Parts: sequence; C-alpha cells; structure tokens
Amino acid sequence: MPKIVDHEKRKIKIAEATWKVIVEEGLENATVRKIAQTANLSVGALRHYFPSQSELFAFSMELVSERVQKRIASKKYDGSPLEVITAIISELLPVDEDRRVEMEVWFVFSAKTLVDPRLKTLSEKNYFSMHDGFERLLNRLKKAGLLREEIHFQLEIHRLHSLVDGLGSHHLLYPDIFTYENMMETLIYHLKTLMKSF
Amino acid sequence: MPKIVDHEKRKIKIAEATWKVIVEEGLENATVRKIAQTANLSVGALRHYFPSQSELFAFSMELVSERVQKRIASKKYDGSPLEVITAIISELLPVDEDRRVEMEVWFVFSAKTLVDPRLKTLSEKNYFSMHDGFERLLNRLKKAGLLREEIHFQLEIHRLHSLVDGLGSHHLLYPDIFTYENMMETLIYHLKTLMKSF
Repeated sequence: MPKIVDHEKRKIKIAEATWKVIVEEGLENATVRKIAQTANLSVGALRHYFPSQSELFAFSMELVSERVQKRIASKKYDGSPLEVITAIISELLPVDEDRRVEMEVWFVFSAKTLVDPRLKTLSEKNYFSMHDGFERLLNRLKKAGLLREEIHFQLEIHRLHSLVDGLGSHHLLYPDIFTYENMMETLIYHLKTLMKSF
Repeated sequence: MPKIVDHEKRKIKIAEATWKVIVEEGLENATVRKIAQTANLSVGALRHYFPSQSELFAFSMELVSERVQKRIASKKYDGSPLEVITAIISELLPVDEDRRVEMEVWFVFSAKTLVDPRLKTLSEKNYFSMHDGFERLLNRLKKAGLLREEIHFQLEIHRLHSLVDGLGSHHLLYPDIFTYENMMETLIYHLKTLMKSF
C-alpha cells in the first residue's frame, strides 16, 4: 500500500521540519507557514496532513518518544551490565547532535504541556513508559546479582528517572558548563553506587 | 527616595503579571498587550518600564531566581542537618502554589534560553549560584561529620543538583503521577544514602 506509506512518510517529514524550526527559532516562531516553507510544502498541503497546529505539535512530540524507543529496541548492546545500561540511558541524553535535537524538542514541548492538555496526555504516557524502562534496567542489575541488597527498589526507579532527566537537561541547557564528560561521569558514578562493588 | 522605590515596585508588579499570563496561557500568548492588561497598565506605561519584550522577560526570569535566594537567606531553619538541608532544598521545589508558579515560570523560560542569548546568560548565572548552593549544603553535612568518607565530593554536587532539578520538574509536569510524597521521599532517601548512618 504505497499510498499509506507515503502519507506517513510525508507526516514524518513535516514533523522533522517542525523540529528544525523549533530548534532554530523557538516554539513561538514555529508557525504553520514557516514549517510548511521549511518542509517545501504549501500551507494547504501541510493542512491536508495536519488540519490544526495542535495535531501537528502532538505528532511532532510523539515522534521524539517513538524514535528513541525504536532506536533502543533495534540496537544490540554489548558489554558488562554497567556498560549496557549506560549505553541504553545514553539514548535518552543529548550525547550527539541527533539526540540533542530530540531532547531540545522534547524539552520545549514539555514546557508547553503545562498549558496544552493534548501534549500533557502524550507526555504522561511517555513518563510511564520511561518509568517502566528504568525499572527494567534496574531489574537487569538485580537479576545479574549486582544490585546492593539494602537499596529501596521503588525509590531507586524514581531517583534514576529524575537524575537522568536532570543530567540531560543540564547538559542540554549548559553544554559548556555541565559538559558531556560531567554528565556521563555523574551517571556512571550513580549507577556504581547502586552496585555491590561500590 | 520614594520615586525609585515606586519604579522598582512597579517593575515587580509587571513581572508578576508576566508570570501570571505565562502560567495561565503559556509563553506564546504572553504578549506585551496582555501583560499590560493583567497589570492594569496601558501598553505605553508598560513600555516606559520595559522598552522591549526581551527586557521584560529577562527581568521576569531573574525575579524568580532572586526571590528564591532571598527567601532562603531570610529564613531560619531549625532541626537536624538532614531536616535543615531538606527544608532548604524544598525552597527550590514546587511544594506549594507560590513555589509551583516560580518553578513553572523558570521552566518555561529555560526552554526559551535555547533560542534567547539574554535569557541564556541569566540562566547560566543561576546555574553557578545553584551549584555553589548545593556545594554549601554538602559541606554542611561534611563539617557535621555526617558525610560518608568514600563519596566523590565534586560528583555528589553534580548529582544532587541534577537530581533536585529532575525531581522538581517531574512533580511540576506530572503532579498527580509523581506526587509531592514521591518527590520528598526520593529526596530524603538520596540525602540519607550520602550519610554515614545509611
């Protein structure tokens, strides 16, 4: 069914143009007109795919979360449990240009969830999925017998989830002050404190 | 010099109106016209205090950081070192309506720092001041002989700073999912893991 594929491809192309405009000019300047121009489409053609700005933004935000999850699911991670977990968490951090764009778009949309119920629902769905992901990572350490016995498992999920978001947003907002090395060193340090060898 | 005092008071009133519009309608809708209306001023009068929207936003963002710092400096905190540190960190978290508004405004402006150099500079200044604040808190535990010997002091500052921002933003964005209790319990749990009794 090439038509359906093309339709989805076109929507993704428009969402990527939305990301580009947001990163370059900010959300306030991400008008439908400017996004259409960046995607090399007429405003009419864009409206065919996204009748409202709200639908366009929701699709563009959801694409970030989908892309991150697909990337994690499609990769094979090698190494020790600590290395594998660090590599998986790195998929959520602004460690390179692509992931920096994803995180920046996500961060900007997150601020908008505070006044946009549609984006809020999306963002909550992603929160649960991240929470489950962090639980699986900690379970992996536990099953490998590497997790310290005295930790509080549920609180460790919250702690890791909050810490990773904090580390990522600090490096996103202050890349020259809180450097890539600072971010990764703090993450690995944290994971090590949960492990028996520490 | 009542004139100067009035001038400053009026600027603060306008900044508070800016916060209100941002919280209620989002940054995209925080036009000078709407802010003037909320502050019960004419657009002309507002422009007398803030010739540009950029100056208005910078002042409004800086006021958040100033207010938090003044509040911490003016209060007397009683209790054990853990209680005092928890209370001070709570000044930075959305634990009540006032602090929720502060954090929401800060979060929304943070997203804008990515495309606004003036706000970025302000935000960086605040980052350093927060970093120093967390260093002082950890030093307080250290001087009281409560900090575990084997921790890495510099990484603990980064970890606490990132964690607190992550906890605060999760409760800000998902108040019904990541509750006040979840936030405080995770914070206190973290602080306890740094202390000798853990």
